[in-house]
Amino acid sequence: MTLGIGLIGTGFMGKAHALAWRNARAVMGDVQDVRLEVLCDTPEDKAAAFASQFGFARSTGDWQALVNDPKVDVVSITTPNRFHKDMAVAALEAGKHVWCEKPMGLTLAEAEEMAAAAARSGKLTMTGYNYTRNPAYRHAQKLVQEGRIGRIVHVRGAVDEDYQADPDLPWTWRAKLGEAGLGALGDIGCHLISLLCGICGPIESLIADMQTVHETRPLPDGTGRGKVENEDTATAILRFANGAQGSFAASRSAWGRKNRLGFEIHGTKGMIIYDQERMNELQLFVNEGPKAEQGFRTILTGPDHDVYGAFCPAPGHQIGFNDLKIIEAADFLRAIETGTRPWPDFAAALEFEKVIHAIAEAARNGTRVSV
Amino acid sequence: MTLGIGLIGTGFMGKAHALAWRNARAVMGDVQDVRLEVLCDTPEDKAAAFASQFGFARSTGDWQALVNDPKVDVVSITTPNRFHKDMAVAALEAGKHVWCEKPMGLTLAEAEEMAAAAARSGKLTMTGYNYTRNPAYRHAQKLVQEGRIGRIVHVRGAVDEDYQADPDLPWTWRAKLGEAGLGALGDIGCHLISLLCGICGPIESLIADMQTVHETRPLPDGTGRGKVENEDTATAILRFANGAQGSFAASRSAWGRKNRLGFEIHGTKGMIIYDQERMNELQLFVNEGPKAEQGFRTILTGPDHDVYGAFCPAPGHQIGFNDLKIIEAADFLRAIETGTRPWPDFAAALEFEKVIHAIAEAARNGTRVSV
Amino acid sequence: MTLGIGLIGTGFMGKAHALAWRNARAVMGDVQDVRLEVLCDTPEDKAAAFASQFGFARSTGDWQALVNDPKVDVVSITTPNRFHKDMAVAALEAGKHVWCEKPMGLTLAEAEEMAAAAARSGKLTMTGYNYTRNPAYRHAQKLVQEGRIGRIVHVRGAVDEDYQADPDLPWTWRAKLGEAGLGALGDIGCHLISLLCGICGPIESLIADMQTVHETRPLPDGTGRGKVENEDTATAILRFANGAQGSFAASRSAWGRKNRLGFEIHGTKGMIIYDQERMNELQLFVNEGPKAEQGFRTILTGPDHDVYGAFCPAPGHQIGFNDLKIIEAADFLRAIETGTRPWPDFAAALEFEKVIHAIAEAARNGTRVSV
Amino acid sequence: MTLGIGLIGTGFMGKAHALAWRNARAVMGDVQDVRLEVLCDTPEDKAAAFASQFGFARSTGDWQALVNDPKVDVVSITTPNRFHKDMAVAALEAGKHVWCEKPMGLTLAEAEEMAAAAARSGKLTMTGYNYTRNPAYRHAQKLVQEGRIGRIVHVRGAVDEDYQADPDLPWTWRAKLGEAGLGALGDIGCHLISLLCGICGPIESLIADMQTVHETRPLPDGTGRGKVENEDTATAILRFANGAQGSFAASRSAWGRKNRLGFEIHGTKGMIIYDQERMNELQLFVNEGPKAEQGFRTILTGPDHDVYGAFCPAPGHQIGFNDLKIIEAADFLRAIETGTRPWPDFAAALEFEKVIHAIAEAARNGTRVSV
Repeated sequence: MTLGIGLIGTGFMGKAHALAWRNARAVMGDVQDVRLEVLCDTPEDKAAAFASQFGFARSTGDWQALVNDPKVDVVSITTPNRFHKDMAVAALEAGKHVWCEKPMGLTLAEAEEMAAAAARSGKLTMTGYNYTRNPAYRHAQKLVQEGRIGRIVHVRGAVDEDYQADPDLPWTWRAKLGEAGLGALGDIGCHLISLLCGICGPIESLIADMQTVHETRPLPDGTGRGKVENEDTATAILRFANGAQGSFAASRSAWGRKNRLGFEIHGTKGMIIYDQERMNELQLFVNEGPKAEQGFRTILTGPDHDVYGAFCPAPGHQIGFNDLKIIEAADFLRAIETGTRPWPDFAAALEFEKVIHAIAEAARNGTRVSV
Repeated sequence: MTLGIGLIGTGFMGKAHALAWRNARAVMGDVQDVRLEVLCDTPEDKAAAFASQFGFARSTGDWQALVNDPKVDVVSITTPNRFHKDMAVAALEAGKHVWCEKPMGLTLAEAEEMAAAAARSGKLTMTGYNYTRNPAYRHAQKLVQEGRIGRIVHVRGAVDEDYQADPDLPWTWRAKLGEAGLGALGDIGCHLISLLCGICGPIESLIADMQTVHETRPLPDGTGRGKVENEDTATAILRFANGAQGSFAASRSAWGRKNRLGFEIHGTKGMIIYDQERMNELQLFVNEGPKAEQGFRTILTGPDHDVYGAFCPAPGHQIGFNDLKIIEAADFLRAIETGTRPWPDFAAALEFEKVIHAIAEAARNGTRVSV
Repeated sequence: MTLGIGLIGTGFMGKAHALAWRNARAVMGDVQDVRLEVLCDTPEDKAAAFASQFGFARSTGDWQALVNDPKVDVVSITTPNRFHKDMAVAALEAGKHVWCEKPMGLTLAEAEEMAAAAARSGKLTMTGYNYTRNPAYRHAQKLVQEGRIGRIVHVRGAVDEDYQADPDLPWTWRAKLGEAGLGALGDIGCHLISLLCGICGPIESLIADMQTVHETRPLPDGTGRGKVENEDTATAILRFANGAQGSFAASRSAWGRKNRLGFEIHGTKGMIIYDQERMNELQLFVNEGPKAEQGFRTILTGPDHDVYGAFCPAPGHQIGFNDLKIIEAADFLRAIETGTRPWPDFAAALEFEKVIHAIAEAARNGTRVSV
Repeated sequence: MTLGIGLIGTGFMGKAHALAWRNARAVMGDVQDVRLEVLCDTPEDKAAAFASQFGFARSTGDWQALVNDPKVDVVSITTPNRFHKDMAVAALEAGKHVWCEKPMGLTLAEAEEMAAAAARSGKLTMTGYNYTRNPAYRHAQKLVQEGRIGRIVHVRGAVDEDYQADPDLPWTWRAKLGEAGLGALGDIGCHLISLLCGICGPIESLIADMQTVHETRPLPDGTGRGKVENEDTATAILRFANGAQGSFAASRSAWGRKNRLGFEIHGTKGMIIYDQERMNELQLFVNEGPKAEQGFRTILTGPDHDVYGAFCPAPGHQIGFNDLKIIEAADFLRAIETGTRPWPDFAAALEFEKVIHAIAEAARNGTRVSV
């Protein structure tokens, strides 16, 4: 019996989830097919139009109907962050597996509530940390685990985009703590945390600073300027449980950066560099061989790297952003099939969100915060 | 009434076509859905397994049954090159539209026969020049058409891979003229020609040289060494009808290159550089503004570039190789729906194949060859 | 009457100063020639050999004789850091102009003593912040000053080398606070501070962390392991007086990095990126023109950038590290000739050293430190 | 007894020679010092001013006086190409060693006359192929000689600048065959030939094409347009004596290129990539180690690469264009001291010039030309 999918949301990530569900089996082969059962958005005719486009059997404007639909086994949540908590908790309570986009909630309390509901429900959850699926990233993980660069001694990470760089952009709900929650930390900073912790393990404590670089923005109705309540940039210095230190930076006001999500892992034997803007590449330096021939090598991903080969048998041909979601969907399907916890589920993702809230707290209070 | 798809082949390009057909409507929205009707491969159980994975309704081991299947409206051909001609001609004669991978045939005569069959049939054809679908490439085309770099004066192109770089690789059918046809020219050189001509227009004449760098290879049965009959590298100097000159190079023995398919277009006002190994980037230099601020800019593709936005509304998030085939499938569907010729159909692609055969001829004979 | 030069030290920086003095006039044309009067090193025959090589008239093993030599007008100090203070103070008291390598002293107290001696003396001083002379950097300064990237909102800087990355390197004096002073902060961190402050102005306060990643090293005599007393890495979050925030990182244990001294300046209209490992390039993004054509441009330095043209009239031909010292020497000569303060003299450089000591203090105490 | 230097010319290359002579001993240590005896240019007061700047003892406006000056042992020729032959022959006949900039002469006949004069004279000669001195290039040579990339099978080279890219640039003597000789081939193409032959050995035969992309240019006096008589671009396909084939391209009209002088050497075990615009880097791919870790490595030059360490003991700090001339001067001095032929002397450089003239001939006649 195949799994029935209910998807809430039809925007950027809604489409990505729809394509992921459509293709997980076709690409991977080793996972079961799914039924695209119900698609939800408002107004309802929008849901209907996208259901036709994406290939869902039915559509609805009522998310509660969707999460309670008996033919739905898995619920994908891709709505604005402020709806995540209610939808996820309701779906879990209705006995569905839940795949929810990051960040889990507006506040740490919401995220904790979601993780608690997941634990109570006995159902499986998955959080949308898609970049952790990139074969290039997976290969970095593997190299570190195998000791290829020795002990990790230092880490640098930054995630930058420019969607709030323009001082003349109008004020939107994104600027409101009560609707968007954190700013750069919640939108993109948590992605970086997922990548860093996925390689270096848990963060123990940190110090931080943050900034609203555009303090007000023109109100869209022309009546003046609205206050920007959340951060445009955040910077932190991390201490990992393994003893490594590292830097963290996130900005949504970094002109020219589109998806600059990258890091350097400094080890006792080498270094690994990753940048999502060149997502099919990995940089590796190892202290071996003649000094005169040492240098950072640019590895182009191919079938020798994690699941790349499921997409294409030829190296260097490249996978794209939507392919990462296919990997994620397949991983979730395998977890459901085998009854094992996927990574990062709500419990694991809660740890990432603790970090971004700890950064915000450390920045506000000027103190070292333990995570 | 939706179109029924018959797909022959389940390898690298077979899977790419299957994914393309599955997703064209889901991604684009503006094209109709299709029925995945029959999948063909041998042995038949392989076809059956992949039909299940890819979502085809039926499978067969008999391509002639497929091309004559009344529920099939469009035939995708992704088999080894030596089968293209028979399959395509049969499908056209059976009244099907045909999407065939490149190169069309083993010989120019085969390609001509296919183009003639297409013309006779009145059906639409499409040749698998997928890189012409890359939004980065499309943007390069647009910039040139709009005169952004002025008149084209000079062109450089190279396409390199390393799948035949290792001298110890065993001899295979790829080395046989009668089975593989041309070597690097047919496998990858024709892609470069499609990209160059797509921007600079037709090639008028050329001079060339070519090389078999590994003249024999160990026979797989250990009985000695087999002769490599086709070229590992080819180099040409092109004259375009528009007056520009340019260089062309192709190698299947270029260590470290995985899909290095790139060019430089030199114009009177600027330059454009493209490299498929960084398929989400385009380099542009324009002679404007203060000299002290001039430089090649690296443009990351995003929704401002052709159909990128159908995949993702956020710039810099990147599309992948399989996405190019989705664009191609959608273009073919739109062409079928409107009854207009897609580009490059068999007639247009024949021109590219004339060029690669002209290169081979010029290299063999040491003379200038008109295309 | 030409100026007589006395140079103390014949190592890495000693040679760089010698070449700088030899060439300042030949390159620039607009500065006077100098007399290479005395070269000092120990043992004395080493000084004699290098005096012959570098073209100095005389040599000595006694630095006090050099600083008191009546034919010496300017003293260059390129010895290990622990000698800087005594030599500089003595030279100033002997009425000489002083060009001293960075960092000024082992401790902030030493640096303050040097700045005080300079102020008392009425002579001119110059500190060896050579990277501030790079035409690429100078152009970045100019672009920022002219408002090309708008108001500075955020800054990222890192300086990494790998000369202490190998865990098996033997223990040396570099590991001793009393001989080397600070570790990565003093060796290379202060260079980064000079570059950041040269563009963004003074730093007001900061928080920081630091790490000794290799806590002990094998003693060279094989008797066991010696303790490393100073930091291998340091990380800080800066607040600039102009309101910008930024991150700072320095490591001497970063495998693969040879002179990675770089920064990003995030402005309201664009971004500038600099990396000394590609010292003839500058990256610039500006939010102007069609979105579809925006991207970071790589500017190759040439005669349109500061004093590059004094070295070569052709762009892209590149200057090198030693050329930066020539620019520095010429700037010092011009300052002496006109009686104006060069930048950064001891007073200005003291501000940079305050910052690195503030980083060390903040890291040790876990508190925000005002500079 | 030190050697006396006479230098003719004070422009771009004149200054480079002056700096080279000034610094060869100071940098290298193992070569003797020289006397900067006479500097020649016209008008004579220009020569006098530059003699003061560059540190020459005397100046003259009469090159014949210089080449016959008894205190001059070595003559540096950096004048426009059309003067090279007469000056070099006269200097050789006067018993001087000669260092002459490339290309040797306007025509092959001139170059042959110079080589013959050198052979007759018994004096040593050196031709200004400065890029062959780059430690990065030297390391490429060494890697190839040691078999690091196996047998050379294919070569790609291009040299591009944009000094004639602007269609509105006025007509100058550069456009006249009788004054400039060849265009892009003579200015920059011969540099590429020196680099290719320095690694791959002699070229046996070639086919070629060439183009004048801007056929006329505005006359500076406003009286109309003047014809451009020589080539803006040249393209060739080379056959090397060792069996490798390769492509060659040169353009002086390539917007955005400032000193793009680069090549790829394709071997049976790996590939080497060089680009003079990043002259302190070398790219190396070798087919060894796990496939998943293979990639082009970017080697930053340092003291492990040829004579880099004479300039700086720290890797990644970078040398510049003028440093290449210092290496060249030192090599010439060592050759003079030991009485051995430097490379490339007039005889060796004649071979490079035969190649560029063969390219021009092949392009004009449309035939294969043996070199």
